[in-house]
Amino acid sequence: MKAEIISIGTEILLGQITDTNASYLAGQLPLLGIDLYWASQVGDNRRRLVEVMQRAWGRSQLTITTGGLGPTEDDLTREAIAEVLGEEMTVDPALEQELREFFRRISYEMPDRNIKQATLIPSAQAIPNPRGTAPGWWVEREGRILVAMPGPPQEMQRMWEREVLPRLRTKAEAGVILSTTFKTFGLSEAGVDELISALLSSANPTLAVYAKPEGIQIRLTAKARESEEAKRLMAPMEARVREILGERIWGTDDDTLEGVVGGLLTGKRLSLATMESCTGGLLASVLTDAPGSSAYFRGGLVAYSNEMKSAWGVDAKLIEERGAVSPEVAQAMATAARLKLGADIGIGITGVAGPTEIEGKPAGTIYIAIDDGRKRRLISGNYPPRRPDVKRWAALAALFELRRALLEP
Amino acid sequence: MKAEIISIGTEILLGQITDTNASYLAGQLPLLGIDLYWASQVGDNRRRLVEVMQRAWGRSQLTITTGGLGPTEDDLTREAIAEVLGEEMTVDPALEQELREFFRRISYEMPDRNIKQATLIPSAQAIPNPRGTAPGWWVEREGRILVAMPGPPQEMQRMWEREVLPRLRTKAEAGVILSTTFKTFGLSEAGVDELISALLSSANPTLAVYAKPEGIQIRLTAKARESEEAKRLMAPMEARVREILGERIWGTDDDTLEGVVGGLLTGKRLSLATMESCTGGLLASVLTDAPGSSAYFRGGLVAYSNEMKSAWGVDAKLIEERGAVSPEVAQAMATAARLKLGADIGIGITGVAGPTEIEGKPAGTIYIAIDDGRKRRLISGNYPPRRPDVKRWAALAALFELRRALLEP
Repeated sequence: MKAEIISIGTEILLGQITDTNASYLAGQLPLLGIDLYWASQVGDNRRRLVEVMQRAWGRSQLTITTGGLGPTEDDLTREAIAEVLGEEMTVDPALEQELREFFRRISYEMPDRNIKQATLIPSAQAIPNPRGTAPGWWVEREGRILVAMPGPPQEMQRMWEREVLPRLRTKAEAGVILSTTFKTFGLSEAGVDELISALLSSANPTLAVYAKPEGIQIRLTAKARESEEAKRLMAPMEARVREILGERIWGTDDDTLEGVVGGLLTGKRLSLATMESCTGGLLASVLTDAPGSSAYFRGGLVAYSNEMKSAWGVDAKLIEERGAVSPEVAQAMATAARLKLGADIGIGITGVAGPTEIEGKPAGTIYIAIDDGRKRRLISGNYPPRRPDVKRWAALAALFELRRALLEP
Repeated sequence: MKAEIISIGTEILLGQITDTNASYLAGQLPLLGIDLYWASQVGDNRRRLVEVMQRAWGRSQLTITTGGLGPTEDDLTREAIAEVLGEEMTVDPALEQELREFFRRISYEMPDRNIKQATLIPSAQAIPNPRGTAPGWWVEREGRILVAMPGPPQEMQRMWEREVLPRLRTKAEAGVILSTTFKTFGLSEAGVDELISALLSSANPTLAVYAKPEGIQIRLTAKARESEEAKRLMAPMEARVREILGERIWGTDDDTLEGVVGGLLTGKRLSLATMESCTGGLLASVLTDAPGSSAYFRGGLVAYSNEMKSAWGVDAKLIEERGAVSPEVAQAMATAARLKLGADIGIGITGVAGPTEIEGKPAGTIYIAIDDGRKRRLISGNYPPRRPDVKRWAALAALFELRRALLEP
């Protein structure tokens, strides 16, 4: 199946946003055995939009558009599709009701112009979008498919995963492509590449290495006539990858580090508490991104000032002597968190988020301590000083180290 | 001048890399007053590459390509340009010498296939590329310009800044495009659209509305011969927008809500403390994303359990009677944060992050309280229940409300 992606929005052509939707979708299509031949961006201009869609409809069995489904006058995707197919847009009563429901839930008065988000053409079915007001369109005619999805990445990605991917699976040519992603932490892309370089030449299954904010990921993909065969192809390669990367792999596919850690804590009936300085609450926030985290997360302290640290049980003299950004203070914070909040395990993080140095320590300096009452662990790191990155890296490093501690016999 | 960007490389269509070159260049063209009408990605396939270039050469005065200038067989940009223009590629002796020089410097034997990087066509001049082995091509014929640059962003950006931008300045029609973005919170996209609809038809300056995670944004763009004139065009429109949206506008351009709030707290010499339940530390984390926040942020408590809330000064009986997710408890949390952490202002957030309801309250229910010792404010909201969205919305709503409080005389 030949596919084409059209990303719609003047903000893309003005360079105000990078078109990450196209690269996300481009990465998804191979999993369906669908070949992407064309990708293009077009502004909120009806004539040009229609021209690009006309060409796509003519040359590609599958056209995927993102953007232009909003309620405003320069959201023209629906109008363009209707024009290209020569069909008429009408308001769908069921969609209109859902839309009004949505606004009632968030207690907003529905503006009149949102009504166009409840329209359809004869060849189009609506694709649900619980994350926004713009349902997608699944258009099918003359053996061709056009899928229109909203531009906001979260809305688009959910719609793709839950609604579009499953429908396309049934349409795509026979044969399956199975894929597993291994998620690592604490390795560089080049590092992973080198470690598994011998495997990268394999044609089926294939291995690909991606750098993601939460660490380097390795995707293992096998193509076969049916799943069983694909799984047989993947098994030995997965074994090699796990053998090489070992405990650096903290999860696969939809796993999140906070979810993995949460599972371990729940399994061991252990509770957790945090005291954060430079991460300013990010670790606690990431921990509580996991549903059900209230079962094991006792609470967190954001001790941004030294008075606050000592008020919560960190020896003021220690801060004086060693400095607020020191291994000793990280340790003391972990212990204080554990005792103050009555948890089994305490984590303390202190460091320099940047941009300016503290106590002569450069931005990016991080000390993370974990105290489970029996044993104390400390890791330190130095991360390229960009404030949000430093915070994220420190929070993830803390979770990764906690996982390691929880896996110890 | 009408411009078009073509990004070349199969790795883009496989989603292995995101096409950041296109967004970089898209952001540069307005500075030259050049309009970008089209952008597309194409793989390392000669037939499709020629087709895309043919169309570009036909409809755009300026075509910019990136990628496909390497030495390997699937680097086909030069061949495609030569085919589209019907000109012949020949090795340029001067270029060949430079290329051999380059390899001598890095003490490598030059592989034979690199020789194609020393080729030109009659209409093309070479553009120097000290960062790599691939010189660019500046092609000019029949009043049209085609610029071919290498794919690696560092090589491309240097070539753009040092070589291409200056040449284009002399070619592009005189003129500049200036732009300001107004950032709002608490309004829907269609809502903003309706409020300013009367202004949306303006041709120069133009207004555009965008939905971003941190709220709806309005971009004002003016085109003129020089900056002063553009500013004169923008001034009255900015005044109208501010008049209509008033205090809903919390900032412009690079402003962040935490930065704006931080500036107000610093200016008023006020300190802040937080107690968070459902946001799990996200508010504290966002607050501390602002450099220098240690000056006004006293600290934060993440009270995820009821024991924790009462341990930190929230009346257990109140929780019992009103429920942990209630306006009264949010109020008590704000006050407790203020007193416990000795801050001028306390913020308390309680709610249901989801996915499951609590105390019969649906996921997405949020209560936010602000206590500055003189006055207590409370806002409540109900947000579409997706855990990370609820948390983010609540944290932003708290910051927006705090800003409002700080702006009061």
